[in-house]
Amino acid sequence: MIGALGSIAATVVAGALALGRGLIEGTGMVTEGKPFAGLDLVDVRRLRFGGCDVREGSLVKSVSEVFTTISGVGRNGLTELEPDLAALQDRLCRGTVRNCGEAIAGLVPEAALESRSLVDEVESIRRELRHFAESEGTTRVVVVNLASTEPPLERDPCHDRPEDLEAALVGNRASAVRASTLYAYAAVQEGCPYINFTPSDGALIPAIIRLAAEMGVPVMGNDGKTGETLVKSALAPMFGCRNLRVLSWEGFNILGNLDGRVLNHPDNRAAKIRTKDRVLAGILGYAPHSRVHIDYVPSLEDQKTAWDFIHFEGFMGARMSLQFIWQGYDSLLAAPLVLDLVRLADLAGRRGESGLMPHLASFFKAPLGVSEHRLHEQHQMLLDYVERAKASSA
Amino acid sequence: MIGALGSIAATVVAGALALGRGLIEGTGMVTEGKPFAGLDLVDVRRLRFGGCDVREGSLVKSVSEVFTTISGVGRNGLTELEPDLAALQDRLCRGTVRNCGEAIAGLVPEAALESRSLVDEVESIRRELRHFAESEGTTRVVVVNLASTEPPLERDPCHDRPEDLEAALVGNRASAVRASTLYAYAAVQEGCPYINFTPSDGALIPAIIRLAAEMGVPVMGNDGKTGETLVKSALAPMFGCRNLRVLSWEGFNILGNLDGRVLNHPDNRAAKIRTKDRVLAGILGYAPHSRVHIDYVPSLEDQKTAWDFIHFEGFMGARMSLQFIWQGYDSLLAAPLVLDLVRLADLAGRRGESGLMPHLASFFKAPLGVSEHRLHEQHQMLLDYVERAKASSA
Amino acid sequence: MIGALGSIAATVVAGALALGRGLIEGTGMVTEGKPFAGLDLVDVRRLRFGGCDVREGSLVKSVSEVFTTISGVGRNGLTELEPDLAALQDRLCRGTVRNCGEAIAGLVPEAALESRSLVDEVESIRRELRHFAESEGTTRVVVVNLASTEPPLERDPCHDRPEDLEAALVGNRASAVRASTLYAYAAVQEGCPYINFTPSDGALIPAIIRLAAEMGVPVMGNDGKTGETLVKSALAPMFGCRNLRVLSWEGFNILGNLDGRVLNHPDNRAAKIRTKDRVLAGILGYAPHSRVHIDYVPSLEDQKTAWDFIHFEGFMGARMSLQFIWQGYDSLLAAPLVLDLVRLADLAGRRGESGLMPHLASFFKAPLGVSEHRLHEQHQMLLDYVERAKASSA
Amino acid sequence: MIGALGSIAATVVAGALALGRGLIEGTGMVTEGKPFAGLDLVDVRRLRFGGCDVREGSLVKSVSEVFTTISGVGRNGLTELEPDLAALQDRLCRGTVRNCGEAIAGLVPEAALESRSLVDEVESIRRELRHFAESEGTTRVVVVNLASTEPPLERDPCHDRPEDLEAALVGNRASAVRASTLYAYAAVQEGCPYINFTPSDGALIPAIIRLAAEMGVPVMGNDGKTGETLVKSALAPMFGCRNLRVLSWEGFNILGNLDGRVLNHPDNRAAKIRTKDRVLAGILGYAPHSRVHIDYVPSLEDQKTAWDFIHFEGFMGARMSLQFIWQGYDSLLAAPLVLDLVRLADLAGRRGESGLMPHLASFFKAPLGVSEHRLHEQHQMLLDYVERAKASSA
Repeated sequence: MIGALGSIAATVVAGALALGRGLIEGTGMVTEGKPFAGLDLVDVRRLRFGGCDVREGSLVKSVSEVFTTISGVGRNGLTELEPDLAALQDRLCRGTVRNCGEAIAGLVPEAALESRSLVDEVESIRRELRHFAESEGTTRVVVVNLASTEPPLERDPCHDRPEDLEAALVGNRASAVRASTLYAYAAVQEGCPYINFTPSDGALIPAIIRLAAEMGVPVMGNDGKTGETLVKSALAPMFGCRNLRVLSWEGFNILGNLDGRVLNHPDNRAAKIRTKDRVLAGILGYAPHSRVHIDYVPSLEDQKTAWDFIHFEGFMGARMSLQFIWQGYDSLLAAPLVLDLVRLADLAGRRGESGLMPHLASFFKAPLGVSEHRLHEQHQMLLDYVERAKASSA
Repeated sequence: MIGALGSIAATVVAGALALGRGLIEGTGMVTEGKPFAGLDLVDVRRLRFGGCDVREGSLVKSVSEVFTTISGVGRNGLTELEPDLAALQDRLCRGTVRNCGEAIAGLVPEAALESRSLVDEVESIRRELRHFAESEGTTRVVVVNLASTEPPLERDPCHDRPEDLEAALVGNRASAVRASTLYAYAAVQEGCPYINFTPSDGALIPAIIRLAAEMGVPVMGNDGKTGETLVKSALAPMFGCRNLRVLSWEGFNILGNLDGRVLNHPDNRAAKIRTKDRVLAGILGYAPHSRVHIDYVPSLEDQKTAWDFIHFEGFMGARMSLQFIWQGYDSLLAAPLVLDLVRLADLAGRRGESGLMPHLASFFKAPLGVSEHRLHEQHQMLLDYVERAKASSA
Repeated sequence: MIGALGSIAATVVAGALALGRGLIEGTGMVTEGKPFAGLDLVDVRRLRFGGCDVREGSLVKSVSEVFTTISGVGRNGLTELEPDLAALQDRLCRGTVRNCGEAIAGLVPEAALESRSLVDEVESIRRELRHFAESEGTTRVVVVNLASTEPPLERDPCHDRPEDLEAALVGNRASAVRASTLYAYAAVQEGCPYINFTPSDGALIPAIIRLAAEMGVPVMGNDGKTGETLVKSALAPMFGCRNLRVLSWEGFNILGNLDGRVLNHPDNRAAKIRTKDRVLAGILGYAPHSRVHIDYVPSLEDQKTAWDFIHFEGFMGARMSLQFIWQGYDSLLAAPLVLDLVRLADLAGRRGESGLMPHLASFFKAPLGVSEHRLHEQHQMLLDYVERAKASSA
Repeated sequence: MIGALGSIAATVVAGALALGRGLIEGTGMVTEGKPFAGLDLVDVRRLRFGGCDVREGSLVKSVSEVFTTISGVGRNGLTELEPDLAALQDRLCRGTVRNCGEAIAGLVPEAALESRSLVDEVESIRRELRHFAESEGTTRVVVVNLASTEPPLERDPCHDRPEDLEAALVGNRASAVRASTLYAYAAVQEGCPYINFTPSDGALIPAIIRLAAEMGVPVMGNDGKTGETLVKSALAPMFGCRNLRVLSWEGFNILGNLDGRVLNHPDNRAAKIRTKDRVLAGILGYAPHSRVHIDYVPSLEDQKTAWDFIHFEGFMGARMSLQFIWQGYDSLLAAPLVLDLVRLADLAGRRGESGLMPHLASFFKAPLGVSEHRLHEQHQMLLDYVERAKASSA
């Protein structure tokens, strides 16, 4: 996990531990649903976690912060998990903030800022991956990007072909890449399936996707679909079914965790809003007036609240509206999907798949290589894959 | 149209006239959408309207009332339509309120209450249908029930087989049927496709569905899915896709038109709430805590407002919520669907279909003979039918 | 406290203990606000609690249940408070359910149902009050009714004059009183200030208010104003200020604690809705269309959610709307007001006031003897009282 | 009226005409409420309207646009008013856009941009005011600024004293003033009471307020309080009454009329948000986290929708929320207040008042010279004034 001290990563680990001990059920995990029974997925209890983070911090504290704000979560279990969390904490390594923008660099002590060459950084990441695999006694490692959103990366000619990207790394062209590029490149080179759960578009650039296809490594992204966009992708097709014309779809998001703080910086926000914006036109076939705001409201902590106002035209030009208010815990919506993606990416690796995994489209706001944005059709793609996988393993 | 002076019927007629004159586009009509291009549907301009109503009233006034409350509707066209509406008004006949419950009977002058035998009433309706067909020079008539909701009809042994129903009619067993039963029976006997757009469950009882199957008449119902339930059937599957557990789904509806007034009576409301309630368990596979209120709020007139509060459980037992607020014009949401259903029922009749039309499930809150309640799957059933129909006519 | 095992009572005790130990601040307590500095109120740390409840139950468990569902509350302190809560639990006595309605009687084991005479029951309550005062070494005891809402009590001639009420008690006319009547009567007879925080209208009947006035005992009620009605009383005057006409004000409340369960019974709900309904007409000077629903939704536990839809008419007949959604924790909104009322009732007792306390109107949905329902004017009445009290004690 | 072709001005005129003819009642006009009976206000029927606008446009069209989007408004009357509206249209003069910012200048044909000196412009406005008074046969003219919001005006030393402002005008220092400055200055010089209904802060700068005080002219502003801020000023005191701590108050406004379009420009929006922001800290005594968005959503036309999310802390640190959704017609909320202000400013002029009119605070988002932001206290200031005025005229 890249960003292993963040609230999503902390919840991933705490959740897997709690599930392993029978403290909780698999609610919220897609792969714990009925259609996945009989699929050859790794057992959650057998997952081992590791990762890196550029911040100082405490995994126990991150978990505890998430839990304090959450209604309905039994807190007794936390004490039971603390030793495991503390042990994991000791195994985390420091990450890179190469070219991540001001907002993220501001989280890191001055001394930690990079002075190494790009090639050295890649090599360092690869070494950590090998070390983790060895110490856990496994050859199957899945890398998931859970770090804060980077600013959008300006397109560069070196982003298209693997050999050009490699030349840029060797030439130490730091401005052509971001930290997320280095991680993704290192993961693919090590043969590790890679998931970009963030909107950072420096990670799965075409060159890396091609490299993954060539090297037989499955990869997928971008940007986990956890809240407002999930609802959007379920609701927007309804207007199409009824031939109602969406005039305006305005979305306002407020949240208060670290992700919210980083997104408060206009550069980082730009990347996020870009992945959210594509969904509507993709589903409706036209682009209604639409704007998405994301504001940092510290008192909300991990609770994300979204208000969407949808103005639409019906018969005889009548104007009507649908509004929705979504109130969810960001980390608790994201974490089970991360566990799902890890299991499914691991399965894909074992099945010898390579390059993009379009059957995982339903998990992402901007699924790479997939133009289908309707939730139910995306979900059907996943169910079809599951049937095929079951059939071929039978 | 049964209930031809009501706001839905008035909007159906005004809408068809306006569409025929190019005053409006087909927004809100499913059959005007892209997938229906090339399907052999009757042109809206060629439709002729007729019907009955138990109330005194004015079609022009009903249309005008609908338009006054609606934002976005061009009102200039109304003046242009008035002569046609007035002409239609003159052709309407009086209907029956046989056993419709207090709330509906209260709308009718005392003198109009029935004293004829059931058989006479059926014969009278059949005569009107033949008269309408002759005067319009057509043999194809579709009957649509748009009357106010009747109280639920207690099941009776005569409801199962056509011959038993006929015996009950001959025996004048008035308590075993409602007005809607008589209309539906008469329509099928005349070979007219029949649509029950209301929740009244006296209309398409098993005996009448069987009769329709035997006589080669297509029929479908119950209860047009126009608002809150439409959203529900689009949103509820999302929780399934993500393995999130719905704990409670509470719905509050307020509206102010005549339908609202009739639904204010507990007997009539019971029928409505019954059709709404089935959707959730059908989609989720379990029944969360759920209640649906429908309240009459006169000042809202035709504007229906619904607030739904959905409480759900996610990962680690965290409780979150989704709320939506739907603000739509009841008649303007329903009327285009009525035009769609008339066109599609007419097509089915010409294609020689008989009995229930499951491909129309997406139009109904409680689609007869269909257990699929997910909107998108229901819509796919319609699209598949359209493809088959196009293929067979090519 | 009558209803001492309920979630409000549990929160009152836990809150006072936590405040006394400096674990929390006085946020949410009116009497901890600036205008009350310098007023001769009893220190919260010096309060001692006792009470009765008809249910079996655990105070620690009630507190714990409240805390589990609440976001933002530090839970660490709870462990620290447990011994005190347990000790208090041991001192609670059994209460009476005399004529409380089916819903409340259903909470009690059969054996606990009353067979004593009314006079014996009153005497038993008085004995408990004296015992509590002695064992705590105080002569100042305030009685607060926090029990579940009783069904409305039908007016009876014996409700007007103290001597007639006494005669009814002696004559053992059980149907003329409810449990709340017995408690209130006993409290006043013992000279204890009495607060009816519930909507139960059997408590402060005219005979008891007169008795209080005669005996120099201050009393006040009914029904703590904690949520939707609080907002209503702040918002409704706005429409008056702008000469906007409220057409409809529809309120939907859902909650899941024991109060919600008891209110699920139509008899008990009737009392609640009655006290809510008076506010609007009192403020606006006319009665708009208005209905208030209260539904029991178990998954919400202590979280009360209200949706209010306000339809109003402005200039040129334009219809507009204001909606609000209130999401609060029932017990945590009520408990600090109970502490406020206890302190203010104690002060009134020491100041020699008797009968109703109109300056406490802002705390109640249906303030006895006060026709002012606007929140800000009610609050000003309290501030004026505070100034007078400070002046007279200086 | 400055901005006489805008939707507010059009509604002011249409409303006054309709009221004069008895087509509508005075709902929404404060001065038509009960407390104003017996106050010596000018009869609405006797008001005569005039004004200027920098745009080309049609008053009938503006009125018609407002009416098309509004539910509940009888449209029949419009035809009756058209001749009067057209006659008024002919009497309008062209205004100035001096230094109004890009967004407003963009509304005006190139040729209309100013080339005259500041002194000439002021003189031209004064001439128009005298001309209007003469042609209507009155000496009492009230000037109201209803033009689009200008960008904030940078403070300049010449803004403080009348003589320095005059020097700046003579020196033709165009950057030190805006169009609104010239209008306000001209109005005061002509002895006309002046109302700034907009947030433009170039209008009532200290120098002009002093000039008004010296010359015996009543003036007041800024920014009519019509919607979200109105609700805010009614609701925020509630949190104070209950000693609840507001953590965050986030406001999102969407609207689609010309005002919305102009506010879409960041410069102009800055002025608006500034006047909205002051209210909260003024009422609560501390500044919670707060942000106000105003977005232009064309499909909404004159309908303004606001969602406010208020996060607050109660007893024991529990976090709760209140949300409200306001859906109103911008022009129909503003227009009656303009009529109120004209009547009250005229009264003040006749009563010999001069300088600021603090009793009108309740009408403004940022009332000049008044620190009281609570709606009910502001309203009480108005009622007290009315009583004094009645007493002195009696």
